[in-house]
Amino acid sequence: MLSVIAVKLPENSYEIAIAPGSLTQLGSYINKLNLGKKILLVSNPDIFSHYGEIALTSLKDSGFDVFTHSIPEGEVNKTLDSIAQIYDTALENYLERSSTMLALGGGVIGDMTGFAAATWLRGINFVQVPTSLLSMVDASIGGKTGVNHPKGKNLIGAFYQPRLVLIDPQVLKTLPVREFRAGMAEVIKYGVIWDGDLFAKLEGADRLDDIAYLSEELLQIILTRSCQAKANVVGKDEKEAGLRAILNYGHTIGHAIESLTGYSVINHGEAVAIGMVAAGRIATKLQMWTQEEEIRQNHLIQKAGLPTKIPTDLNSEAVIETLQTDKKVKAGKVRFILPTQIGKVTITDRVPSDLIREVLEEIRI
Amino acid sequence: MLSVIAVKLPENSYEIAIAPGSLTQLGSYINKLNLGKKILLVSNPDIFSHYGEIALTSLKDSGFDVFTHSIPEGEVNKTLDSIAQIYDTALENYLERSSTMLALGGGVIGDMTGFAAATWLRGINFVQVPTSLLSMVDASIGGKTGVNHPKGKNLIGAFYQPRLVLIDPQVLKTLPVREFRAGMAEVIKYGVIWDGDLFAKLEGADRLDDIAYLSEELLQIILTRSCQAKANVVGKDEKEAGLRAILNYGHTIGHAIESLTGYSVINHGEAVAIGMVAAGRIATKLQMWTQEEEIRQNHLIQKAGLPTKIPTDLNSEAVIETLQTDKKVKAGKVRFILPTQIGKVTITDRVPSDLIREVLEEIRI
Repeated sequence: MLSVIAVKLPENSYEIAIAPGSLTQLGSYINKLNLGKKILLVSNPDIFSHYGEIALTSLKDSGFDVFTHSIPEGEVNKTLDSIAQIYDTALENYLERSSTMLALGGGVIGDMTGFAAATWLRGINFVQVPTSLLSMVDASIGGKTGVNHPKGKNLIGAFYQPRLVLIDPQVLKTLPVREFRAGMAEVIKYGVIWDGDLFAKLEGADRLDDIAYLSEELLQIILTRSCQAKANVVGKDEKEAGLRAILNYGHTIGHAIESLTGYSVINHGEAVAIGMVAAGRIATKLQMWTQEEEIRQNHLIQKAGLPTKIPTDLNSEAVIETLQTDKKVKAGKVRFILPTQIGKVTITDRVPSDLIREVLEEIRI
Repeated sequence: MLSVIAVKLPENSYEIAIAPGSLTQLGSYINKLNLGKKILLVSNPDIFSHYGEIALTSLKDSGFDVFTHSIPEGEVNKTLDSIAQIYDTALENYLERSSTMLALGGGVIGDMTGFAAATWLRGINFVQVPTSLLSMVDASIGGKTGVNHPKGKNLIGAFYQPRLVLIDPQVLKTLPVREFRAGMAEVIKYGVIWDGDLFAKLEGADRLDDIAYLSEELLQIILTRSCQAKANVVGKDEKEAGLRAILNYGHTIGHAIESLTGYSVINHGEAVAIGMVAAGRIATKLQMWTQEEEIRQNHLIQKAGLPTKIPTDLNSEAVIETLQTDKKVKAGKVRFILPTQIGKVTITDRVPSDLIREVLEEIRI
């Protein structure tokens, strides 16, 4: 089973290859790209202990000189300091413009490796091998790279496209169940904003809360259609001038929740799940879609084992205030992505603060 | 006198406007671009004391909200830490994606402001107002932005295009004479690599070693033709895939000299001047151009008050070793730009080390 998705951009088009067991073929996939022989593989200790050797063996068998760089796990390390350390390793190993930085890991590793690749020697080759569901269907596609500022997530970064994204669904078997669910939040998002068929397929599944219950076929469909949805949107709007903003469905309030809970209690997918519930409710109240559709969405979120309520200790005023400092604020107005039906959304900056407040209170635990 | 040069790129084309007194019109120039109202002006204390008020007044008169950020003078401050400080100011003033970072200063300010603009919120608007001859004819055009790594110059950075480059030749009156000469090194470079007419015009001038002896007309010609040369080259090869490398004429050995003298004793333009003398001699020895042309080049370099000899205390072996760590090294081979006639160069990685050594010894003081 091999699905190949072409991400078509004005410059720097590339492919996403999705195939069970493909990690063992990593070297030959990269060989086809005609890049230089030096590769800096960036990972974290846990991922590296599971998949480092498989990746290294495949790369070395294909004749690459591979160096490794490890970053301790966690969003807390997604800093400019960690990037400076990648630079040091790049310098020590004489990486050249034709060399490649390869991210083996989840979104944090991918975002940082991408930013380091974007800014070392003003940009060297970058390959993504995502190992979490979240990074497979979201972070690894679309060229967003970067790190956090002490006062805000992802404020520092660059748009930089990989030369290849290689997805091996088999690596998801070692993913903690909570992280699998977090990835499902983004999958459900694609169903709501873009792909009503994907949404229906998810509704048809017996369970969505643990990869153990998913068939290899359904997993391939989920990955392929999610990546395709993201690739379509990014292909039409690489630099987030307009359409691409729809990918932020659930993220407006989601980011505020993450930020206020210190990026630790609630993970990104969980925050997006709650954000989708909030946005869905706002849309119902504005009569943009039906309550029936809102219920279908929330049912799917619950089926994936994701939260649908805001934690009680989170102050609504604090959420509203945090919305104002979000990157997506334009001329002081908070921008919301709201569904108009399953598979379709619209962008608006005309949601009254009172309505946001009302909804935040309603969906409290 | 207004010259407008269009820099045509696949994406993000922009204009270079060159006009005496144009700094007082800065606000209306930017107004035409339809950007957001917030501008972060980045400068250094010296430049700001001369031109800050003129720029601020013009921007405010055009209705912009202007914030300022100052970086202490000098290449030593061109670090990732300084960038982090620009980020802090950007955050404090709630810069948005539609906002602009404006560099008022020389190459160091331009490179850093450009890199901060490229990486804040994954890229906001960037405007260059270069105040040194070097930054007018070189650094401000072509989208190279970045900072130094403790172990190498400009190793960290991004290709990022400004929305506008505004050049007011009148600000050169306060430029120290040594820095004016450093800029002339790049002007002479354009004559050698691209524009034989410019070279002839420079040969026709009485003196080139001090701006006080240049007519307003000649200065306008020098700026316009130099910018045009760079814009032409960059327009054909934005990301340095091939042709753009010719802009590095004189820089291969030049960078090594700068690096070995700690970026302080010899400035960039002086190092490039010596690098051109070395490259010119190599070309003569390889019979790529004539000795007569080499002499014409060296005469012009001397007329601009620039050095033509390598300092005695600089070890030739150290220079050769340093060449190996340069960004321009490809698969371990040192790449040289060599003139084939006045106005034309070629790129080669086949200069024997022995020949480099021989030339380095010959042009020693």
